[in-house]
Amino acid sequence: MKKTLALLTLAATATLLTAPAQAQFAKPDDAIKYRKAAFTVMGAHFGRIGAMVNGKAPFDAKAAAENADLVATMSHLPWSAFGPDTDLGDTKAKPEIWKEQAKFKQGAEKLQAEAAKLAAAAKTGNLDNLKAAFGPTAETCKACHDAFRAK
Amino acid sequence: MKKTLALLTLAATATLLTAPAQAQFAKPDDAIKYRKAAFTVMGAHFGRIGAMVNGKAPFDAKAAAENADLVATMSHLPWSAFGPDTDLGDTKAKPEIWKEQAKFKQGAEKLQAEAAKLAAAAKTGNLDNLKAAFGPTAETCKACHDAFRAK
Repeated sequence: MKKTLALLTLAATATLLTAPAQAQFAKPDDAIKYRKAAFTVMGAHFGRIGAMVNGKAPFDAKAAAENADLVATMSHLPWSAFGPDTDLGDTKAKPEIWKEQAKFKQGAEKLQAEAAKLAAAAKTGNLDNLKAAFGPTAETCKACHDAFRAK
Repeated sequence: MKKTLALLTLAATATLLTAPAQAQFAKPDDAIKYRKAAFTVMGAHFGRIGAMVNGKAPFDAKAAAENADLVATMSHLPWSAFGPDTDLGDTKAKPEIWKEQAKFKQGAEKLQAEAAKLAAAAKTGNLDNLKAAFGPTAETCKACHDAFRAK
């Protein structure tokens, strides 16, 4: 029973991760280019918050809120682009993404949850709140990169 | 007087276009990578609306609204990444961007205005409204690509 449930979950997850990609990208390379672009935009705006959190840039509450909203928006985008046949090509994606789809999906959802908290924290206009939410969000990036992205 | 005003406008525009880039990107190549990524994400979501508008994909009102919101969001991002020293490198950006900054900025603002209308049209849930707003938005893409992007 447990095994059946696990298999059903895996199948459902696989469908979630693959169905939109097939519909949305003409070629696997288009999907790879898209997901890398989404990560690049997300990383740039997350980095701007990081600079404020780490004292490398002055705290600007409005900019922090805008950047955090963008991170939260972008956190939803890359995942549908890890569909079939997108494991090869110009990508650092590790085979584990397709072997451990439930774990991969969990990682994506964790990022989305933390990014939403980051955006809420940024909206308070308080640097301490921003700092408190930044670390857990950064950890979700690192956890997935360690598990699923080649160096 | 007219000339002075024109020069002042040019100076203000140049400041708008260059100041954030200097603050936000460690290296010119980072800015180039970022702006290309923002265009890639924008283009992908605009293309999904295009597929619906052109009958190549079934009309999905919810997806259209989400895609149009993303296009509108992304329409604000690339411009600060056309700062000093970002004319060289892995880019199709033409020198005209820096020679005709007022025209370039107008093009960006026109896209932002049309993308906002597209997002509003998509929210009506009516395919005809979406079609009516799609063309003018696409024209703003083409106008800037013709003027400012190398083939």
